[in-house]
Amino acid sequence: MISFAAGNPSPECFPTDAFREFCDAILTKDPARALQYGITEGYTPLREDVLCRHAAISGVDPLKNTAIITAGGQQGIDLTCKVLCNRGDTVICEEPTFIGALNAFRAHGCNTVGVPMRGDSVDPGELEAAVKRAHNPKLLYLIPTFQNPTGRTMPYEVRKACLRIAEKYGLIILEDDPYGQLRFAGDDVPTIKSMDTDGRVVYCSSFSKILSPGIRVGYVICREDIASKIAVCKQVNDVHTNQLMQMVCHRFMTEFDLDAHIEKIRSVYREKAELMIGALDDKCSGMIGYTRPQGGLFIWAWLPGCEDHDGFVRALLEKKLAVVPGSTFGCTVGAPSTGFRLNYSMPDGEQIRKGVTIMSETAKEFI
Amino acid sequence: MISFAAGNPSPECFPTDAFREFCDAILTKDPARALQYGITEGYTPLREDVLCRHAAISGVDPLKNTAIITAGGQQGIDLTCKVLCNRGDTVICEEPTFIGALNAFRAHGCNTVGVPMRGDSVDPGELEAAVKRAHNPKLLYLIPTFQNPTGRTMPYEVRKACLRIAEKYGLIILEDDPYGQLRFAGDDVPTIKSMDTDGRVVYCSSFSKILSPGIRVGYVICREDIASKIAVCKQVNDVHTNQLMQMVCHRFMTEFDLDAHIEKIRSVYREKAELMIGALDDKCSGMIGYTRPQGGLFIWAWLPGCEDHDGFVRALLEKKLAVVPGSTFGCTVGAPSTGFRLNYSMPDGEQIRKGVTIMSETAKEFI
Repeated sequence: MISFAAGNPSPECFPTDAFREFCDAILTKDPARALQYGITEGYTPLREDVLCRHAAISGVDPLKNTAIITAGGQQGIDLTCKVLCNRGDTVICEEPTFIGALNAFRAHGCNTVGVPMRGDSVDPGELEAAVKRAHNPKLLYLIPTFQNPTGRTMPYEVRKACLRIAEKYGLIILEDDPYGQLRFAGDDVPTIKSMDTDGRVVYCSSFSKILSPGIRVGYVICREDIASKIAVCKQVNDVHTNQLMQMVCHRFMTEFDLDAHIEKIRSVYREKAELMIGALDDKCSGMIGYTRPQGGLFIWAWLPGCEDHDGFVRALLEKKLAVVPGSTFGCTVGAPSTGFRLNYSMPDGEQIRKGVTIMSETAKEFI
Repeated sequence: MISFAAGNPSPECFPTDAFREFCDAILTKDPARALQYGITEGYTPLREDVLCRHAAISGVDPLKNTAIITAGGQQGIDLTCKVLCNRGDTVICEEPTFIGALNAFRAHGCNTVGVPMRGDSVDPGELEAAVKRAHNPKLLYLIPTFQNPTGRTMPYEVRKACLRIAEKYGLIILEDDPYGQLRFAGDDVPTIKSMDTDGRVVYCSSFSKILSPGIRVGYVICREDIASKIAVCKQVNDVHTNQLMQMVCHRFMTEFDLDAHIEKIRSVYREKAELMIGALDDKCSGMIGYTRPQGGLFIWAWLPGCEDHDGFVRALLEKKLAVVPGSTFGCTVGAPSTGFRLNYSMPDGEQIRKGVTIMSETAKEFI
C-alpha cells in the first residue's frame, strides 16, 4: 500500500538531536519549573518569543496583540470557536477546508457554510453573498496560505477583500496558518493578520509542521480580551499545555537556528513536491487536474468532468494507493467529492513515482 | 508571605533523574514515534499499563473497561461531562468540591447541585433527596478518597449507597481519584469503580500527583462506548496528548519502581501532614476544627460557630498567611465560605509551624 493520504510532516524533518539536548538541559537546570503546574496562558518566555517572531515574519502588531499557548493548533481553533460563537451561529469556510476545524465548529453547534474555491481562492462576491444569506454569521475561517486540502494560496487582493467583508458584516476572521513558514517557491503574501487594525483577526499556528506535531504545542495570537476568554476556557479544558515541551520550544526559538532548520524542511518538501508535480506532468497531464503549491504539504487533484470522484478514490484504493476523498473536507455532510487530496511529505521518491503511475493508469480506465 | 493555598505536589517528589533518563532514551531509540502525530485514544502501551495497574490497585475490571489518555485529569472531567450531559442537565456534587470540575460542568451549561459533607462524607439520604429534586440529573461527581478540598475519605458503606442511588436513578458516577495512591495512614477503601458491574462508573485519574502535573498526562477508565465518545471529542479538542510524555509515563510504569517512588512521596506527605496536624493540635485545639486526612494534599478547617469565614481568611492574609476560602469550592456561586482549605505539600516545616501560629493568633482575635 502506498499512502498519499497522510497529513503528517516528514519525520526526517524532526530536529531530534536538539530535542534530546534541550530536554536534558532543562531537566538538569530547571526541573521543578518543567515538571510543576504552569500558567494557563503558557510559559511566559515562549509567549514572548512567539509574539516577536510573528511580528517579524507575519506582520503581527505586538502592541495590539498577545499570544496564548495551546495544545497544538487544533485546540486554538476549538477554543476560538468556543469563545466567539453560540450554538446556531454560522462559520463561513473555504470549500473544501480542514476537517479538524469543521468538526470543531460542528461540535460547538455551529452551522458551517462553504464558499467554493475558484482558481486560487474564494471569490469575494460569492463570499459576501454567503455571509448575507447566513444565519448569525460570526466567524470567517480561512487558511490563506498553502491551504489544506488544496495547497492553494489566497492572493493579496482577495485577503484584503475578505477583511473588508469581515469589517462590513462584523465578523471575526480565524486565520489558520500552520503551513505559512513552509514556502519553497514564489514570494510571501502578507497575512490577513498583518492588515488587521481593529483586532478582527485571530491568528492560529503551531510548532507541529516546523518542529514536531507529537509535542502538541501551538498558539493563538489575538487581542487581549479574546485571549483572556480563551484562557478561561483552556483552564477548564486542560489547565495548561505541557510545560517541558513549551520550555523546549523556547530553547528552539532562542538557542537554535530555527530559520536554518526551516530552510532545510523547505528544501525537503520542495524536492518532494517537485517530484510529485513532475510525475503528474509526465503521466497525468490532460487527464487529471491538480494544483501547483508553493509550500505546505498538499496537492489537490480532480478529474475534469468526472461526477464520481469517490468511485475514483475507491478504484485507487483497490490498486493500493490511498488518497483522501474530497468529501472529507466538505462543509455539507454527505455531499459527493469534487476532487481528492495528495500528500507529498510522507511518501519517498519511489512511492511518489509508483503512486502517480497508479493514478494515471486508473484515470485512463476511469475516463 | 506563607502559602497554605497551593494545590501543587511537592517538587521534592518529582523523579527528575528518571525523567531525564527516559526522555534521553526515547529520543535516542524511538524519536519518530515520540515526535510524530499519535493516536487520539493514547499511546497503546500506556493505555494497557494504566488499565492493568488499576485492575491491580483499584479493582477495575479490565475486560469490561478501557483506558483513554487525556491531557491531565482535568481534560478527563471536561470531556466526560461533555459526552454525558446536555445543557440544563444537573451534576450532583459533594459540597464543597473541586473548583476545576465545577467550572467544567458550568462551562457545559450544567447546573451544579451540592450535597453537604457531613462528618466523613455526604449523607446518602440527603444525596437521594437532592437527586429527586434535581432537574435532569445525569452525573454524580465524587472524589471519594482524600477529597479536595476536605481531605476526607468516603466510607465503604457510603460508596455502596452512592452506587445504589446511581443505579436507582439512572445516573453515571464520575469518580475522580487523583490522590488515591497517596495514602500515608489507615487502610485502603475500595473504589466505587471496583463495585461497578454495569459500566455506570467513569473513573478519572492522572500522573500529576505521583510523577508530575506539568507533563499533563491523565486518563479515563470506563466502558468502551463512553470512551469512544470521549475520543471523538478529544480529537476535535487537541488531537491527542503529547506523545513524548506518554512514552515517558510508559517507561515509568515498566522500567522504574513506581511503587517504591510512591512510597517515598507518601512518607514526605505523611511527615508534612503530621507536622501540620500536630501544630494544629498544639495551638488551635478548641478554637479551630479541622479534618485529619489519611492521604492526599489537603486539610479542611473551620471556626465552629463562625459566620464570617471569608473575613477570617482576609484577616489571615493581612498577617501574610494565604489559605483558600471555602466559597471557592461551593456549588452555589456567591454563597459564603463555611471553612477554608489548607495545603501541606508545598510549605516547609518552618512555614507550617509559623503559619499555624498565625492561624491560632488570628483565631483568638476573631472569636
